[in-house]
Amino acid sequence: MGSQSYYYQSRIPIKDAAILVRSEDPLFRLAWRKRILDHDGDGAKPGGIEKWLRLVEATGLARELALRGDGILPATRFAVQAYVDFVSTRSHLEAVASSLTELFSKKTNCFADGPPARTLSLARRRSGLFHCRLTQAPEDSEFALAWVVKHAHTRTEQDLAHAALRAKCDILWAQLDALYFSYVNPGWPPPGAFQPAKES
Amino acid sequence: MGSQSYYYQSRIPIKDAAILVRSEDPLFRLAWRKRILDHDGDGAKPGGIEKWLRLVEATGLARELALRGDGILPATRFAVQAYVDFVSTRSHLEAVASSLTELFSKKTNCFADGPPARTLSLARRRSGLFHCRLTQAPEDSEFALAWVVKHAHTRTEQDLAHAALRAKCDILWAQLDALYFSYVNPGWPPPGAFQPAKES
Repeated sequence: MGSQSYYYQSRIPIKDAAILVRSEDPLFRLAWRKRILDHDGDGAKPGGIEKWLRLVEATGLARELALRGDGILPATRFAVQAYVDFVSTRSHLEAVASSLTELFSKKTNCFADGPPARTLSLARRRSGLFHCRLTQAPEDSEFALAWVVKHAHTRTEQDLAHAALRAKCDILWAQLDALYFSYVNPGWPPPGAFQPAKES
Repeated sequence: MGSQSYYYQSRIPIKDAAILVRSEDPLFRLAWRKRILDHDGDGAKPGGIEKWLRLVEATGLARELALRGDGILPATRFAVQAYVDFVSTRSHLEAVASSLTELFSKKTNCFADGPPARTLSLARRRSGLFHCRLTQAPEDSEFALAWVVKHAHTRTEQDLAHAALRAKCDILWAQLDALYFSYVNPGWPPPGAFQPAKES
């Protein structure tokens, strides 16, 4: 399932670039740019995406398959695209607020901009369908939270920030459910998606 | 599950309007416009969407809930949006070709621009997760097929048309899988989605 998570991770710097597009504040862009650097690396030191690729390889899958996006669940693609679209079309405040799911990743110790802790706490999540925290520094989520608190002045803005966080939870949840459906129970990957080897 | 299917159907005229946007040929637009009319009605006679709403009501759900989109599965929203985006951003040929799943609906007698017959033929689809044919005249799919055959001149264009049809199958399949996951097996609707009454 590493390649499904890789696909999500590989789109995170694109999402973060879409957030850069929304900001007219150089100081915000400076802080947020760090996320792209952490994911994409600096040309010498490998970034988070490269670490994900190595994780994919460690599961026995070819790096090229992950890079090409072979076998990615359509439901994963649709949810990830919904995330990129969300940050590209909503307000700057909503775009930043949608990243706040990462606040919960500290508790689970295994996420990068990933599902909220309550998602994992459910027994149905015991199958190892999660995103490991390979890329993100704690100060990033602290910055995002402080920025949202500072910029959500009115009740309407606070409601928008809250709704953005919920929308992001829907996006993560849909990915986990699609993985579970395809590879755990009932275990029916759709045509064209990665087909696991049958257990003997 | 009627409201999930209603949501998909309610976006079909928007998708068809996006196809109208792509065409510079008044004769094509005249033929395709009929689809919007069939769905939206003419102001006097109810169109296909109104018939869907009555079907939703017949299942015991309030029309207002369906109209507001309450309880729609996020995965359904993401897949439907992927369809609207597909026809909005791809070539006119690909946009029209993506509608050709309706060709298979004649065999199942129960689709409007809906899943291919092979989807239904699987045992796993026996749960009644399908779109009933309430809106579409057979001549629409004949027109679309003839148009695609006429305009896909080169092998590249034919491959694009084929890929568009496959992409549409992914979109429909993802909706059916999300429904099955949420309401059949394992039967776990995500937070915020429609929760069926427990059977006693």
